[in-house]
Amino acid sequence: MDVEPIQTSFDKQTVMALIGARVASVEEGRVVIELPFRDDLCQQHGYLHAGIVTTIADSAGGYAGRTLMPAGSEVLATGFNMHFVRPAIGDRFMATGQVVKAGRTLTTTRLEVHAVEGETRRLVAHGTQTLMCIPGDDPRAR
Amino acid sequence: MDVEPIQTSFDKQTVMALIGARVASVEEGRVVIELPFRDDLCQQHGYLHAGIVTTIADSAGGYAGRTLMPAGSEVLATGFNMHFVRPAIGDRFMATGQVVKAGRTLTTTRLEVHAVEGETRRLVAHGTQTLMCIPGDDPRAR
Amino acid sequence: MDVEPIQTSFDKQTVMALIGARVASVEEGRVVIELPFRDDLCQQHGYLHAGIVTTIADSAGGYAGRTLMPAGSEVLATGFNMHFVRPAIGDRFMATGQVVKAGRTLTTTRLEVHAVEGETRRLVAHGTQTLMCIPGDDPRAR
Amino acid sequence: MDVEPIQTSFDKQTVMALIGARVASVEEGRVVIELPFRDDLCQQHGYLHAGIVTTIADSAGGYAGRTLMPAGSEVLATGFNMHFVRPAIGDRFMATGQVVKAGRTLTTTRLEVHAVEGETRRLVAHGTQTLMCIPGDDPRAR
Repeated sequence: MDVEPIQTSFDKQTVMALIGARVASVEEGRVVIELPFRDDLCQQHGYLHAGIVTTIADSAGGYAGRTLMPAGSEVLATGFNMHFVRPAIGDRFMATGQVVKAGRTLTTTRLEVHAVEGETRRLVAHGTQTLMCIPGDDPRAR
Repeated sequence: MDVEPIQTSFDKQTVMALIGARVASVEEGRVVIELPFRDDLCQQHGYLHAGIVTTIADSAGGYAGRTLMPAGSEVLATGFNMHFVRPAIGDRFMATGQVVKAGRTLTTTRLEVHAVEGETRRLVAHGTQTLMCIPGDDPRAR
Repeated sequence: MDVEPIQTSFDKQTVMALIGARVASVEEGRVVIELPFRDDLCQQHGYLHAGIVTTIADSAGGYAGRTLMPAGSEVLATGFNMHFVRPAIGDRFMATGQVVKAGRTLTTTRLEVHAVEGETRRLVAHGTQTLMCIPGDDPRAR
Repeated sequence: MDVEPIQTSFDKQTVMALIGARVASVEEGRVVIELPFRDDLCQQHGYLHAGIVTTIADSAGGYAGRTLMPAGSEVLATGFNMHFVRPAIGDRFMATGQVVKAGRTLTTTRLEVHAVEGETRRLVAHGTQTLMCIPGDDPRAR
């Protein structure tokens, strides 16, 4: 598994540096992104904002899909849905994207975000995502 | 329409200050949040990251729902889905949350995000959201 | 607007005859399907089953998308989401599919289903849908 | 696991008799519904209509949720989303509903539908669902 193209693309996602996220693992069809909790990423109750939970989940799923696409392809998330099942409280958050079905044009993934607090790991959000594979590298070619 | 409880809650959403978003308008059942483009909010092609598009849409929808809930209620987004229909390029982004159906326990909203560039305003994302009304102010009472 | 290709395709959807649905109107980017209530289409409380609500909504959205695609194209729904906001009770149900954004490969629609009872028309479900345009007529070419 | 309340409720879902579906298995948090293919349940290419795929998935998820709710509770699906990843072709279809997180008010499930053809079993659709638990038995109490 060549991690380098994923890491290179991730490094261009400027929002990841802003929020402090990093790639935790890359396998075929599965990518994990880690985000330490920070006070400036929250909603009104001091939980991680659902949009930030989704930001790391979306990137995890997109890169999971990309591991299965031809080299040089670009991937675009055309949509996703998320369910928030517990308050997003924890020391850090692990977003996992897992390919469910890789197709020529469309790929779907399953997204999960866990909150980690000491030894405890609890599911806070889950959902699904649709990706479109763009051969070559023009993401506007839609 | 008393805007103040919405603005007060919004000011507690620390992530809004981080990304530079502000409340643009509050009406009964409809809230608009504005976000100027910034280079540090992007994905790998320099477009606004889908998660940030979703962050402002989620808050817009949540506050739209809250305008129709009893005073003192808290609102939790239990889920949403988004479709990304054009690259998120523009000078600024306007996220609109519009209540579709307000219920006692659950409320659903329609979410739209437009990119604004000069005089041009283009839809870049749309979706729906489910909110849960929490009477009193304990969001963990789920 | 040439309604005939839509009606011809609809007539091949054998499930529409089984449940008793018909095309009520076809405009560019917008199709309405009507379904009279029947006792054998219900869930355990005697309301129209959410899956049947979705069946007519899905076809309405798919045909709405097809009105904007090149002649000879086939359309596949690659996914949808639905919110059920009131019990599906009524004399008949009107499912409306409305194109939000028509793209070369992907099209998204908004779906709404209203229950009609005498003069009253109430929203019972709403959602969104993603369609894929298949040039020519091989729907397996995915 | 007391299967009887599930089967009793299922038998009141008149649409299940219309399409020929049956309960295949009931476990805590997991229900499978089986549907043999029939020519009168199809869309225009002779595949099982996505709405019918969804009909059995929705009921499977709803009953999966109900296995974890207090006796006498009613369950309402407040929404779902589905992705269709392969044409729905097969001798029969198995819809599995699996609880992801059971809450006091809201429960979320994962939905999968497989097509079975001889020894082959292929995923044709997957998604997620939100359920609301109604204590007592008044489904309008929303």
